[in-house]
Amino acid sequence: MKIETKTAHFSSPLYLESGRILEPYEIIYETYGTINADKSNVILICHALSGSHHASGLYENDRKAGWWDGLIGDGKAIDTTRYFVISTNVIGSCFGSTGPMSDNYYTQEPYRLKFPVVTIKDMVHAQMQLLSQLGIYHLKAIIGGSMGGMQSLQFAVDYPNLADEIISLASTYATRPWTIGFNKVAIEAIRRDPRFNHGNYQKDTFVEDGCDGIAIGRIAGHISYLSPDSMDDKFGRNYVSNDGLFELFGRYEVERYMEYNTNNFSKIFDPLSYLYIVKAINTFNLSRGYDSLHDAISRIKARVHLISFSSDYLFFPSEMEHIANMMKRNNQPHTYLEVDSNYGHDAFLVELDKFEENIKDVLK
Amino acid sequence: MKIETKTAHFSSPLYLESGRILEPYEIIYETYGTINADKSNVILICHALSGSHHASGLYENDRKAGWWDGLIGDGKAIDTTRYFVISTNVIGSCFGSTGPMSDNYYTQEPYRLKFPVVTIKDMVHAQMQLLSQLGIYHLKAIIGGSMGGMQSLQFAVDYPNLADEIISLASTYATRPWTIGFNKVAIEAIRRDPRFNHGNYQKDTFVEDGCDGIAIGRIAGHISYLSPDSMDDKFGRNYVSNDGLFELFGRYEVERYMEYNTNNFSKIFDPLSYLYIVKAINTFNLSRGYDSLHDAISRIKARVHLISFSSDYLFFPSEMEHIANMMKRNNQPHTYLEVDSNYGHDAFLVELDKFEENIKDVLK
Repeated sequence: MKIETKTAHFSSPLYLESGRILEPYEIIYETYGTINADKSNVILICHALSGSHHASGLYENDRKAGWWDGLIGDGKAIDTTRYFVISTNVIGSCFGSTGPMSDNYYTQEPYRLKFPVVTIKDMVHAQMQLLSQLGIYHLKAIIGGSMGGMQSLQFAVDYPNLADEIISLASTYATRPWTIGFNKVAIEAIRRDPRFNHGNYQKDTFVEDGCDGIAIGRIAGHISYLSPDSMDDKFGRNYVSNDGLFELFGRYEVERYMEYNTNNFSKIFDPLSYLYIVKAINTFNLSRGYDSLHDAISRIKARVHLISFSSDYLFFPSEMEHIANMMKRNNQPHTYLEVDSNYGHDAFLVELDKFEENIKDVLK
Repeated sequence: MKIETKTAHFSSPLYLESGRILEPYEIIYETYGTINADKSNVILICHALSGSHHASGLYENDRKAGWWDGLIGDGKAIDTTRYFVISTNVIGSCFGSTGPMSDNYYTQEPYRLKFPVVTIKDMVHAQMQLLSQLGIYHLKAIIGGSMGGMQSLQFAVDYPNLADEIISLASTYATRPWTIGFNKVAIEAIRRDPRFNHGNYQKDTFVEDGCDGIAIGRIAGHISYLSPDSMDDKFGRNYVSNDGLFELFGRYEVERYMEYNTNNFSKIFDPLSYLYIVKAINTFNLSRGYDSLHDAISRIKARVHLISFSSDYLFFPSEMEHIANMMKRNNQPHTYLEVDSNYGHDAFLVELDKFEENIKDVLK
């Protein structure tokens, strides 16, 4: 599989939903496979909160491959021998696209808290500029899970003629207060972290020992990415063998898992980016800018494929079903699959075998 | 209703599950109503994580009555014209019973992190000493919700001849990793709070502006006390009217609720006590000390009344049902009620009208 990483530069302003502009800006992206002559084999992949453009393949010196490596590649469900796959990094991110710690062109200082709020609509809008720069005006499919699934749906509503197929996994039509509540843990933990210093930290502050605010917020995140049953299966009530049951800070396995995952994450993810991306998730509402959700959904011309997971405690199956029911009443082409899973929200990253055939079918 | 608040002093050691001892110690408690001549009308109430002995009545200058005021009082479901109700504050608490910020008798300094770990079994054991000091050897009933429900079940198992009726609401037989995960947010947020200072804070440190660690951990708590549907009903996607949707720190109503409740709480609840009580919840396991859960449950002689709430996302109905099924197979006298509720875990504090008749029936 041919992999390329590129950065696109945009000197014309990006008009944001807030009324503010972002100018200039950059989008980093990876591509897998080869584009055909009539550019008819392009698939766009959208990433989730903690993801990046690195969806597939293994970088040199990396232990872990891209976040959907099992799904994207030669002969895989998203087959790179047939399709040219573009995976972009959202604006607001800390992995290469313009975000809050990028230098403001006019001051040559990082934006920090002066970075404008970006929304899912804005992320999608920015990706449209990228496609335009690449001379790509039509996509075979747009695919994403969680926040990536929000983007794929937002594409479907805002740009009805862009893609043939929309695949949205483990996502929703509008973020509910339950999920906003989980995100609130991270927002407050970061805000109140003294080393965050109201956003005025130095760039390398958290490389060595991580950002406490992110680590704490991320524990709440991991709860919502798993499920009560998956935690029973994964950890049970097992105790870390060297810890004492009657020591105050002795830990259960589930606690060690939380520590390990969140500490690592807090060294690589920028806290300002986390705040901005969480804000984009919280403000996600397909109906904003339209008269109603029905009005928004009715605009869709693509075939929409909705995949939910029975044990998803972040975006419940009923939320995806709500979209499916609306499309059904409208006689709009769509499929809905509730995958039977114990794994929780993370199933869209982990239990690929449970839905890869469906994706293959859609792309056939 | 006659209300008294008293503190009982114990100079003999309390042998703890950990093998350590607590000596001397105190238990603060409230009583409602009047004990009859043969002491046959006593009911014991056990409180939850954030609760105290103040279960009913209104203190002077207080805006809020005790946490089960709607249930305990003259003519109420737990009728204080008939029953003498004792509500104790658990050891480890910060509301008057001996806890980590109490002075160690031998050093005249607060225990802080040297306070021994206490378990639900220990809390119950301490309350037994109180009953003994009061000359009460038999109870009409022991009633509690959440951590209070754990205590009532632990009483049933450890002291089979003590009570006629056990009522346990919104509780479990052993804390699952899902709940331990929620508690982990608080543990890490408190530990990493610089003002917590490894437990070496001054006693009045958090009175003015609260403890960030508790406030953050408590947000995770409040998520688990509500439910996705109750949050939809209570907050929807409403925005705080003065906040800007496109301001980074603009807030949804659910976020304001979290801020308000957790900030207030973080001024009154001691962070060390929070850590110790959360530890007691995490280590709760009815089967510990017995060969199996079945062995533990089989000891019970009281009639057990289990009440779960359909939307409880902290202790799921299936957990209470598990106990009920075991008692059923054993032919042990019990009732099981799953209350249909949208309200989440907090229903046991809020939707009294949905189960007060059941409690009345039990106490008739």
